[in-house]
Amino acid sequence: MSTFLNNIQTPDDLRQLKVKELSILAQELREFIIDIVSTKEGHLGASLGVVELTIALHYVFDTPKDKLIWDVGHQAYGHKILTERKDIFETNRQLNGISGFPKRSESKYDNFGTGHSSTSISAILGMAIASQLKGDFKRQHIAVIGDASIASGMAFEGLNHLGVTKANVLIILNDNAIGIDPSVGALKNYLTNVKKGTAKDENIFECLNMNYTGPIDGHDLDLLLTELERLKTIEGPKLLHVITTKGKGLQKAEENQVAYHAPGKFNKETGERIKRVSKAEPPKYQDVFGHTLVELAQQNQKIVGITPAMPTGSSLKYMMEEIPERAFDVGIAEQHAVTLAAGMATQGLTPFCNIYSTFLQRAYDQLIHDVALQNLSVIFCLDRAGLVGQDGPTHHGVFDLAYLRCIPNLTIFSPMNEIELRNIMYTAQQDLKGPIAIRYPRGRGVTIDWRTPFSKIEIGKSVELKKGNKIAFLTLGHIGNLIFQLISEVDTPESIGHYDMRFLKPLDNQILDKVFTQYEHIITLEDGCEIGGLGSSIIEYANKMEFAGTIKVFAIKDAFIEQGTIEELHNICGIGMKSIKKYLEDIF
Amino acid sequence: MSTFLNNIQTPDDLRQLKVKELSILAQELREFIIDIVSTKEGHLGASLGVVELTIALHYVFDTPKDKLIWDVGHQAYGHKILTERKDIFETNRQLNGISGFPKRSESKYDNFGTGHSSTSISAILGMAIASQLKGDFKRQHIAVIGDASIASGMAFEGLNHLGVTKANVLIILNDNAIGIDPSVGALKNYLTNVKKGTAKDENIFECLNMNYTGPIDGHDLDLLLTELERLKTIEGPKLLHVITTKGKGLQKAEENQVAYHAPGKFNKETGERIKRVSKAEPPKYQDVFGHTLVELAQQNQKIVGITPAMPTGSSLKYMMEEIPERAFDVGIAEQHAVTLAAGMATQGLTPFCNIYSTFLQRAYDQLIHDVALQNLSVIFCLDRAGLVGQDGPTHHGVFDLAYLRCIPNLTIFSPMNEIELRNIMYTAQQDLKGPIAIRYPRGRGVTIDWRTPFSKIEIGKSVELKKGNKIAFLTLGHIGNLIFQLISEVDTPESIGHYDMRFLKPLDNQILDKVFTQYEHIITLEDGCEIGGLGSSIIEYANKMEFAGTIKVFAIKDAFIEQGTIEELHNICGIGMKSIKKYLEDIF
Repeated sequence: MSTFLNNIQTPDDLRQLKVKELSILAQELREFIIDIVSTKEGHLGASLGVVELTIALHYVFDTPKDKLIWDVGHQAYGHKILTERKDIFETNRQLNGISGFPKRSESKYDNFGTGHSSTSISAILGMAIASQLKGDFKRQHIAVIGDASIASGMAFEGLNHLGVTKANVLIILNDNAIGIDPSVGALKNYLTNVKKGTAKDENIFECLNMNYTGPIDGHDLDLLLTELERLKTIEGPKLLHVITTKGKGLQKAEENQVAYHAPGKFNKETGERIKRVSKAEPPKYQDVFGHTLVELAQQNQKIVGITPAMPTGSSLKYMMEEIPERAFDVGIAEQHAVTLAAGMATQGLTPFCNIYSTFLQRAYDQLIHDVALQNLSVIFCLDRAGLVGQDGPTHHGVFDLAYLRCIPNLTIFSPMNEIELRNIMYTAQQDLKGPIAIRYPRGRGVTIDWRTPFSKIEIGKSVELKKGNKIAFLTLGHIGNLIFQLISEVDTPESIGHYDMRFLKPLDNQILDKVFTQYEHIITLEDGCEIGGLGSSIIEYANKMEFAGTIKVFAIKDAFIEQGTIEELHNICGIGMKSIKKYLEDIF
Repeated sequence: MSTFLNNIQTPDDLRQLKVKELSILAQELREFIIDIVSTKEGHLGASLGVVELTIALHYVFDTPKDKLIWDVGHQAYGHKILTERKDIFETNRQLNGISGFPKRSESKYDNFGTGHSSTSISAILGMAIASQLKGDFKRQHIAVIGDASIASGMAFEGLNHLGVTKANVLIILNDNAIGIDPSVGALKNYLTNVKKGTAKDENIFECLNMNYTGPIDGHDLDLLLTELERLKTIEGPKLLHVITTKGKGLQKAEENQVAYHAPGKFNKETGERIKRVSKAEPPKYQDVFGHTLVELAQQNQKIVGITPAMPTGSSLKYMMEEIPERAFDVGIAEQHAVTLAAGMATQGLTPFCNIYSTFLQRAYDQLIHDVALQNLSVIFCLDRAGLVGQDGPTHHGVFDLAYLRCIPNLTIFSPMNEIELRNIMYTAQQDLKGPIAIRYPRGRGVTIDWRTPFSKIEIGKSVELKKGNKIAFLTLGHIGNLIFQLISEVDTPESIGHYDMRFLKPLDNQILDKVFTQYEHIITLEDGCEIGGLGSSIIEYANKMEFAGTIKVFAIKDAFIEQGTIEELHNICGIGMKSIKKYLEDIF
């Protein structure tokens, strides 16, 4: 079938084709992506939108000698397929398979690992300056960045520097007016005006000293080739503004761009998504957050909701639909999101600021300097905490316990189930003075009937779930549910106690004092990095109290963890059932 | 003397003056600032530059009901003096005195604590949205932000959101073309063109949907009053671009704006800085960094230097003078600085990225996601680590050990003296695979003859400085010098051993195994937060090895630490000589 694609392993093969053959290749590449993603799942819409651009870039530029970076990387599937990875593309996002994002260790064509947004301009400028210093003035350096990503502060910092250099850099603004959710902000509106021709003479990018071209149709291969060839001859920093359609070529994906960002399995002919057989199952934590926030906000007028560009992923969309005047999508702007929340909190509002654990790394200073130092009552809900699965090392939320625990004034809570999440949200908006971080994982909880009446959670108090006489499990968050099963499977369940710590900070010293006297062995379990998290905190307190028993920490070892299903990764990291059972056998 | 200023305690008093009296008040306010700062030290130039603006803002707006935020806050001395703090202004930056930055707990006129740059737009927007939600549409919200600060990514994120709101916000762009060092970047060049009248019709701020006015002379009180009165009546987001001169009114400060940012003591009549009597004393760590980098870069062509807006403070200025093509001031852009370094490292360059410890919090994600995950050889030099003294809680670099230690692939080193700093820089640029963070404090080291020939430091190896038989001190970095004195003052020095750990990561387990067998008591000493730092790491390893002795951690308690001299603060935090001696007495 795929006459041209079949014969392409590398961009060199691609460059053997005639220009007029490229549109057929584009069709074949689109079909290939749809074929695989429809059964293997993954990110669809972004890559479909840049099929022509991907082909044109590799056709015109001398990759991998010329440097090409894909910002975020959701859109790099076509790039991967054309650069030696067609035959293993079906392993995309699987354990030991290729990454869903560009990755340096995977291919010489992946010049910079991405995953988080808005890094590409800084990285490509670094490469271009390196070329200059080496006296290599011919090498081309290209970054492809979306309109949602270029609106993030870090991208602006990159442009601001780029504009005063003579670096041989081409920024391709891939403007499809959507990130994962539709783009927002003044720059998006401005770009819309540019596209309509209503913007004035001087361009915002020209203000920043870029040589600007556009906007042009990013699905017009001939035009792309012409412009890229032309831009190759122009020295210094330049920006090409291309208009594309996310999901291009699959009608359903074009019509419903949010759902088809990562649609799961779908019928490759009709585009129809394949729904799993519906059965009663526990809700996703994100939906418990989203629906509970609406409930609370309807009762408490002070509540506002904030998300940096994740209304769908965080389920803040429910509040945005129900109470739009108090729910804010601020775009890919974690720093702004946190300090905006701080500003609101000074005036007596109660902001729920929902940020994925891994993305809060982007607002670490704002959390310390603007929120915690001023002891402002901002409620952070950290979704996707712990291992997130197939998005892999760029997205695992495993450092949060360590980087949060050292911040004074901050309360840190992790719910073991849906009810605890609801109740801590209820408690925090009513009682809390000062900031709190509530971390919960990707995926589903454990409770089907989760919409129970609210009740308060005592700050700093853990829960004794089961008494024991020899071994105490101290667990934090959802992963603690593992211990129920474990206890049901051991020979001497009476020896094992189980404590849901709930709060990493303040630590429940009272219950720990009891545990230290009643048990010989303590085992801690968390889905965060072993350095600085729950285990560390227990060991630190045990040292102070001169606990004489043993403490074993089950946590994520000091390494970046690869992709795979969450269960696979828990086993690999040694925090799964098997590892814990083996340790228990040794001490029994 | 100061007829008008004498009678002003609050802005209400100010608002009793006639317009024509304000220029006299401006003169008095300037003299007052010069009087105090010339003897008490502090930040001078920024506040002198906004004397007229400060008076005009409080005259036109109904502070504190109207909300006013000073970005960074160096320029807020006049504001403080006019808002109930004239009589205590001489305690500025001292222990228990008023803060050198706006601070919520200090005054109802300080609406948002600042210190780090570029937070004001986000914070003021949060306040303005809060006013809207409360139905208060009359309240005014003003943020004053400099041209260096507005070029930082976070400020752009704030503007991008502000532009799509109807929030009643006035941004005052205080354009003096300098932060602490002269401003850089494309936006700065653009603003220069605007001032020259060579920019085109549409303004970059108008592109972001702001109502733009300017540029106007920020020292012309009448003009300021007229424009502010007019802008008060305009709804929605607006930006007033004012041109000021940093150091205005003191000739020497105008002529040498970098030195007079914080000039130390000076003659208030002539402006002449009062140099301390020169005697042989150890160099500042920053200068050891700066000069050593030049030495190394002259030998190693791969070395590049990067600073986000701190050429003077970090002493990267020496390399910028000597080897300008390989030394980069990227402006207030920590995120960009780190990922730029990562991009360079992918191409085989060896970047030394110098960032104050507290400001690296701004680039935490980039450090994890762009550098450590890809295991790139970037050498981070973290100046101002530990307690920094009079800049206070916004600037102490006390969280770094904790937030760095949890990052895989990262080596963490802290030099005990100048020689160790030189040698680790030498070692890192030659041998290291992967990233390293080298943290050192503000101020001077301990070695007068510090320009010794380079020698290599073995990665992960600590140093036994003194054998003992009962108590082992494990110290990290400069603060370890305290133990020399301590040992010289105790009755039984033979009982005390002292180990310079050098590396927080990788930890020298070999020497620890020895220490665990040879000593009953371990005492750790560090100038970082007690949660997650050196003490924690020793306790964690001791737990693994089942060390039966005691471990006492001297570190900074879990609280934000106020301002004072470093010595005062060490004593307050219980990491000074007195506290350690007292503990020793107890275990002897």
